[in-house]
Amino acid sequence: MPALRVDLVSDTSTRPCHAMRQAMAQAPVGDEQLGEDPSVNALTARVADLLGKEAALFLPSGTMANQIALAVHCDRGDAILAARNSHIIEYEGAGAAVFAGAFVMGIDCQDGIFGVEDLETQWRSQRVKTPRSRVVSVEQTSNLGGGSIWPLEVLQDVSRFARAHDLVMHMDGARLMNAVVESGVSARDYAATCDSVWLDLSKGLGCPIGSVLAGSQAFVDQANVWKHRFGGAMRQAGIVAAAGLYALEHNIDPLAHDHRRARTFGAFLKSLDGVRLIHEKIQTNLVFFDVSGTGKRAPDIARSLLDHGVRIGASSDTRMRAVFHRDVDDGGLDLAMKAVSHVLCE
Amino acid sequence: MPALRVDLVSDTSTRPCHAMRQAMAQAPVGDEQLGEDPSVNALTARVADLLGKEAALFLPSGTMANQIALAVHCDRGDAILAARNSHIIEYEGAGAAVFAGAFVMGIDCQDGIFGVEDLETQWRSQRVKTPRSRVVSVEQTSNLGGGSIWPLEVLQDVSRFARAHDLVMHMDGARLMNAVVESGVSARDYAATCDSVWLDLSKGLGCPIGSVLAGSQAFVDQANVWKHRFGGAMRQAGIVAAAGLYALEHNIDPLAHDHRRARTFGAFLKSLDGVRLIHEKIQTNLVFFDVSGTGKRAPDIARSLLDHGVRIGASSDTRMRAVFHRDVDDGGLDLAMKAVSHVLCE
Amino acid sequence: MPALRVDLVSDTSTRPCHAMRQAMAQAPVGDEQLGEDPSVNALTARVADLLGKEAALFLPSGTMANQIALAVHCDRGDAILAARNSHIIEYEGAGAAVFAGAFVMGIDCQDGIFGVEDLETQWRSQRVKTPRSRVVSVEQTSNLGGGSIWPLEVLQDVSRFARAHDLVMHMDGARLMNAVVESGVSARDYAATCDSVWLDLSKGLGCPIGSVLAGSQAFVDQANVWKHRFGGAMRQAGIVAAAGLYALEHNIDPLAHDHRRARTFGAFLKSLDGVRLIHEKIQTNLVFFDVSGTGKRAPDIARSLLDHGVRIGASSDTRMRAVFHRDVDDGGLDLAMKAVSHVLCE
Amino acid sequence: MPALRVDLVSDTSTRPCHAMRQAMAQAPVGDEQLGEDPSVNALTARVADLLGKEAALFLPSGTMANQIALAVHCDRGDAILAARNSHIIEYEGAGAAVFAGAFVMGIDCQDGIFGVEDLETQWRSQRVKTPRSRVVSVEQTSNLGGGSIWPLEVLQDVSRFARAHDLVMHMDGARLMNAVVESGVSARDYAATCDSVWLDLSKGLGCPIGSVLAGSQAFVDQANVWKHRFGGAMRQAGIVAAAGLYALEHNIDPLAHDHRRARTFGAFLKSLDGVRLIHEKIQTNLVFFDVSGTGKRAPDIARSLLDHGVRIGASSDTRMRAVFHRDVDDGGLDLAMKAVSHVLCE
Repeated sequence: MPALRVDLVSDTSTRPCHAMRQAMAQAPVGDEQLGEDPSVNALTARVADLLGKEAALFLPSGTMANQIALAVHCDRGDAILAARNSHIIEYEGAGAAVFAGAFVMGIDCQDGIFGVEDLETQWRSQRVKTPRSRVVSVEQTSNLGGGSIWPLEVLQDVSRFARAHDLVMHMDGARLMNAVVESGVSARDYAATCDSVWLDLSKGLGCPIGSVLAGSQAFVDQANVWKHRFGGAMRQAGIVAAAGLYALEHNIDPLAHDHRRARTFGAFLKSLDGVRLIHEKIQTNLVFFDVSGTGKRAPDIARSLLDHGVRIGASSDTRMRAVFHRDVDDGGLDLAMKAVSHVLCE
Repeated sequence: MPALRVDLVSDTSTRPCHAMRQAMAQAPVGDEQLGEDPSVNALTARVADLLGKEAALFLPSGTMANQIALAVHCDRGDAILAARNSHIIEYEGAGAAVFAGAFVMGIDCQDGIFGVEDLETQWRSQRVKTPRSRVVSVEQTSNLGGGSIWPLEVLQDVSRFARAHDLVMHMDGARLMNAVVESGVSARDYAATCDSVWLDLSKGLGCPIGSVLAGSQAFVDQANVWKHRFGGAMRQAGIVAAAGLYALEHNIDPLAHDHRRARTFGAFLKSLDGVRLIHEKIQTNLVFFDVSGTGKRAPDIARSLLDHGVRIGASSDTRMRAVFHRDVDDGGLDLAMKAVSHVLCE
Repeated sequence: MPALRVDLVSDTSTRPCHAMRQAMAQAPVGDEQLGEDPSVNALTARVADLLGKEAALFLPSGTMANQIALAVHCDRGDAILAARNSHIIEYEGAGAAVFAGAFVMGIDCQDGIFGVEDLETQWRSQRVKTPRSRVVSVEQTSNLGGGSIWPLEVLQDVSRFARAHDLVMHMDGARLMNAVVESGVSARDYAATCDSVWLDLSKGLGCPIGSVLAGSQAFVDQANVWKHRFGGAMRQAGIVAAAGLYALEHNIDPLAHDHRRARTFGAFLKSLDGVRLIHEKIQTNLVFFDVSGTGKRAPDIARSLLDHGVRIGASSDTRMRAVFHRDVDDGGLDLAMKAVSHVLCE
Repeated sequence: MPALRVDLVSDTSTRPCHAMRQAMAQAPVGDEQLGEDPSVNALTARVADLLGKEAALFLPSGTMANQIALAVHCDRGDAILAARNSHIIEYEGAGAAVFAGAFVMGIDCQDGIFGVEDLETQWRSQRVKTPRSRVVSVEQTSNLGGGSIWPLEVLQDVSRFARAHDLVMHMDGARLMNAVVESGVSARDYAATCDSVWLDLSKGLGCPIGSVLAGSQAFVDQANVWKHRFGGAMRQAGIVAAAGLYALEHNIDPLAHDHRRARTFGAFLKSLDGVRLIHEKIQTNLVFFDVSGTGKRAPDIARSLLDHGVRIGASSDTRMRAVFHRDVDDGGLDLAMKAVSHVLCE
């Protein structure tokens, strides 16, 4: 098989650049568990400020950020309201049941975005037998919703409903900065609608490891106990936190290029016979498309693309996902389009 | 307030008749936890035979039967597939998350009955992150589905899918005997589609306490460990098991009268201005209806009915549920209809 | 095998007497889950008063009472301090870990009774990694402590320590009334040292089924949610609650006879060659003894006793336990002593 | 306060040296979650070989390694047998209860090391109510046992007992390499006694982050599911795995110097009036000592030492712990001894 030249399988596959590696190599460090790592402390202060929260916690992954936040917010037997296609339902090993002892009630909705009318149907107050609704969880951007952006007004409406109904609001901000760059709304404004929110450093921002979970001081104190219980407390974590500091400085604005390339790629796909975009509009860096009209199976297409050095994931027999990120430049985009043309017109 | 003369709030409100009380008063008993209660042993043998299973376990309630079965079938992080409106989702305190550490994936479906095409959408094999589908749970009859009966062929199709996909199949048989009496299909034939199944004794069958959970000997042995952990192991439980033996002898066939009365009541409601049956067909003993066309709120109607000695539950501002059971005879049905007429024509 | 004439295996094997059966047969009943069972309501009010607590909850067993109380008191990751040989450690399926997500830290102590000095060693305040001590659980009387009675002053000292250290105090009162009858201290005085406490109806008090868990109204409200989640909510539970009301009226004072007979039996055992009482003093109705000096294995002795119609349990190769209760009168005591003499002098 | 010159608070405070930082800066990386990180793959292969196991898993911490291993080995309601002072009881947030739903039965024992006779007392086979003993967990070396080494023959005896009684054996190898270097027994020989075992990279080996958990392929496959559920799956984790590869090459043998310095420090402490070594023999790099004979409180001593630039932890009013590691050389040892002399003779 030829070398992989363009990897569109995920924005998690970004590799740290030379300058980021240098930042890590020179990072001042200490024992994170004792609160003595200066790079970790600088990063959490920086993210707390960016998100307008009192405090923040460094964690090894976004999944842990979600699971810890839900475990803190829920008592056993509570219910979490989230889009049916959200990451916490589809990709986190049913952790909310295992750790929080909670149900996640999946809301069927367009592009992973729901509104107050959906909550009105799903919300349950505590009766003796019915699981009490306790958390509303939103995913900004929505991965399986095609990278769709929650509009600020929708978040604010949902947040008002939440506050009026004694619900805690949590944001899975795996790709929050993509939404910020695309919409022009600040991270702080988005985050103001939620009680807890986290940023992923290892997706479009290009770091190797880490997420930062923010909220009130009381929330972060409780989350810290769960962090230790999970084994998410590391030691000289400043090595990787330094990458986060670098990324917040240098890697946010360039996300706009990922979005532009994704849109170009989407327009290109639309022009192909038998290919259909699953989400009408490419909002950020994710492009989901259906290839059932081509007469070819998605996994076969994926394999043929690999022969051209291009990797695009097949999530079923008919569906594929291409993700744009900082390791794919305009040349990579061209290569990817040529390879797709070649494979589909063979 | 006048005395309650007709209680249609639930079939759980049946009171033991004199003969059943006598059976309890004379029951031979022993220590159930030591396996020495002859009445409990007779009842579990009788139900295992009725359902065509190797063994059975006496339990204090149907909720415990569901929760124990799911805890035995699931490992932490598994997913259970069930109708969105099923009892295990709406009314059991999110027990599947608390005890089994499992998600219940709710399937939106007509009358609480789903088919293989729904399972094909919801089923997930074990991947590293995605919760593995492990159990299909069906509710016979479906309470919030309006007392609808799962047709045997649908159960058999679902069962074939389950076996082909390494899924365990569980039946919440809270009102299984209503389905048996109405359809003419045997309990054994229904149960043959499932790995575990339970009967509720305290609903239409008229007992004060108890359910019986059946399955293979290996399943029942594991369920017995959970029974003790839950504190569901009692002592001279033969006192109440004797009621179950009496009910299986005398109270099954009369369920047909409950269905007949429910149908009469449904036809009567249909004739009223502003009242709409929620489920097109009254299949068994449950009648759900919408009163939004009457200009009156359901809770107000419920209160007015109480003034006439009739109790019917309001589940929201617009919806009500009437349940027929052995403590409501034809005279009670008449009284109820008169009271409803009076209240709605005031 | 001859018929069983004297059953000393446990006080759980008591059978309801004729009068108690009559009380059950005539009990007024309603739907317990709706709070409408008058016998259940009378029983919980009666026990709340007896124990000096605001409210109480009827449950199918003592194990469920322990598990629900611990689940209410603990958050996930908390620690419970209890005697190493307590029922919640040895006989409840590690429920405290499964339901409450809590550790039980076992305290090695004489006769199942510990003091403030033990708590000082075991107590941990919340640090980030160390499980926070949250509950002190005491068992009155201590079963594996030989039926030993917690002296009121010890309970009061422990309670003072608990309150000073933000610990909740729970009493497993499986045999609390044995302690009351023997010591002359009121149930209310014992219970005043604890935040939650329960009585078992199905041991020495002679009922077939049930326990009653008492505490503050807020505690009982939370416990009620867990009761439904566990499936401990029954329907016309008044049938069995009526037995409890009967027992509280008639079966408390006679416990003194059980203690007298246990002491007589203990003195008799002491006089036998090769037999040793495990607990120096017989305080209530339990007699543990070691038969290793007889040259016979305990299970063999148990089998031989059965041939004489007497059942005494063997808990290991060398240890046996005889339990006195209301179904064993002076004649039964004589028979038991004769059988033991015969078997050990064969 | 003067700069910290000698930090004896823990071997977790080691900082990566220049060469290790270079190894990290140049590490080849990929997406760990997709199994594509070459440095992670090299490290897990290297550790699996070192420990003689089929496979291994990279994790962010030792706590996560313990918790995942226990969750895989246990079903809900099982019991784990471990020393009362073990890390999994004292310092992991009762994770075994939260995640595995298991009790840890603490064995009181000298220096954290127990034998077959202790297991014989604690072991319980599955009965219906008693928690089944499922895992024996050992800690090599025992931290709170004073860095004591489990002798190979004791491990082999315990392992034989475990295998004969259907118990899984797990080793918390936080300081396994200290035991290897000191005893001359190979890591492979120690590990052969266990079904699962992990190495900590971030203690004496000097890495910033990480542990590696090893066992059979089937075990590691299950552990990997839990790794994702916990959020322990990172992305370009090769950055930190590269430090582990460096450490296995360069940092094992030098552990002998830590032990030598610890012994010198222990001998020095022994010579001081009022100071007592808590563990008779300094076996590896940990030195616990009691200062109650000095008339000074341990926290006050710790504070005074900080004024001399030396940090030693106080774990209570009377006890202190000094830990030797690669960032403390002979000069540091001298400084520490001088500071202690000065503070205690003031």
